[in-house]
Amino acid sequence: MPTEQVLPLELIDKCVGSKIWVLMNGEFVGKLLGFDDYVNMVLEDVTEIEPGVGKQHLPKLLLNGNNICMMIPGGEGEDVWEE
Amino acid sequence: MPTEQVLPLELIDKCVGSKIWVLMNGEFVGKLLGFDDYVNMVLEDVTEIEPGVGKQHLPKLLLNGNNICMMIPGGEGEDVWEE
Amino acid sequence: MPTEQVLPLELIDKCVGSKIWVLMNGEFVGKLLGFDDYVNMVLEDVTEIEPGVGKQHLPKLLLNGNNICMMIPGGEGEDVWEE
Amino acid sequence: MPTEQVLPLELIDKCVGSKIWVLMNGEFVGKLLGFDDYVNMVLEDVTEIEPGVGKQHLPKLLLNGNNICMMIPGGEGEDVWEE
Amino acid sequence: MPTEQVLPLELIDKCVGSKIWVLMNGEFVGKLLGFDDYVNMVLEDVTEIEPGVGKQHLPKLLLNGNNICMMIPGGEGEDVWEE
Amino acid sequence: MPTEQVLPLELIDKCVGSKIWVLMNGEFVGKLLGFDDYVNMVLEDVTEIEPGVGKQHLPKLLLNGNNICMMIPGGEGEDVWEE
Repeated sequence: MPTEQVLPLELIDKCVGSKIWVLMNGEFVGKLLGFDDYVNMVLEDVTEIEPGVGKQHLPKLLLNGNNICMMIPGGEGEDVWEE
Repeated sequence: MPTEQVLPLELIDKCVGSKIWVLMNGEFVGKLLGFDDYVNMVLEDVTEIEPGVGKQHLPKLLLNGNNICMMIPGGEGEDVWEE
Repeated sequence: MPTEQVLPLELIDKCVGSKIWVLMNGEFVGKLLGFDDYVNMVLEDVTEIEPGVGKQHLPKLLLNGNNICMMIPGGEGEDVWEE
Repeated sequence: MPTEQVLPLELIDKCVGSKIWVLMNGEFVGKLLGFDDYVNMVLEDVTEIEPGVGKQHLPKLLLNGNNICMMIPGGEGEDVWEE
Repeated sequence: MPTEQVLPLELIDKCVGSKIWVLMNGEFVGKLLGFDDYVNMVLEDVTEIEPGVGKQHLPKLLLNGNNICMMIPGGEGEDVWEE
Repeated sequence: MPTEQVLPLELIDKCVGSKIWVLMNGEFVGKLLGFDDYVNMVLEDVTEIEPGVGKQHLPKLLLNGNNICMMIPGGEGEDVWEE
């Protein structure tokens, strides 16, 4: 059965209005309000996670697509490493 | 109720004339005077914050969008980490 | 015999529906669902490998082409260094 | 009173012929001779400042916009940190 | 005698079908199969060289032009430093 | 007297056929054979300088504009720091 293709901007578009987990040189979990072709993103009700430092809440912010490494739909922001 | 979408450049546009907090490899709080499609930004009356070093005031400057990680509307430039 | 040329996006296109190994500042092995001209990629059933930390499974994610260093078709995600 | 908007390339354009302070992974103070849409810049009579190493004079150079973090009109290249 | 100009993509084009040495945050020596305007490259029969770690063979891979620093036609992948 | 403007690509164009000093995460001095709008450059008869390691000669190479920080026309590749 051929794989159902999912384009990058389609995946992001499906996440608008939902929670996502974005990894850059910091980590952010929040509701996606909008994005553009450069993968710049606007998030609301955001938890910023700085591994080893803590968490902080930010009402609304813009993340620069240039520096985003990875986006996980509906992520909880918790790494679950297995050795 | 469907989420009211906010596009990245819309969010920045709403901030023109107001204070914003920009995080790159340094941090800057100042009044946004203008921006372009590459998220390059002109700020005025700027406090540069170098964590662990101090703060300094800069009258006006250009920040290169390429190296901007995050922009927070109306931010005070104070991290409030919870363990 | 002249070399049979393979363009970058052709190589990626051939991998859609198959497993690939992507190296950024982390490593990912998963099934490629789609990509775009900026080499942004959507992977499914993904194993994230953090050398020295461990592995974790992620159902679906977007990788930002900007930060991808290398993609290996059908890779197993195991380095086989020879001294 | 509405804020008088200043676009990034406008700010740079106003600096042509004047001294500017450019911060990348090094710092440069010199007279701006020209620039382009990618914020690439040509400077003349340039002092390169390597914090902790020293200063050196360079007659003319090109700075790659890609790696420029910040430009300050008329800067002296002296940080004035307040604790 | 005026210098015979060689444009970047011309130089790469001349290398298709031949061995090249590509330096990013790792080093790769292999046969160039194809490239595009973003200097993304497809290599075959590739030796990856991790200075201080070792070498490994990879059948075919894509290198992201964004993160390529340097390409040397016909290189052997051996640094020959003189003090 | 108004400043005689010099655009970035004009400056590079004037250097074709001459020696230039290019600084990235390494340093290179060589004859410029060609360049493009992305500031990718082809150099010939190149000395690569790795501060603290040494120098090595490379016949011809491509430097990726993305990772170039600075270009100095006619540079000798010798830093002359004053405390």
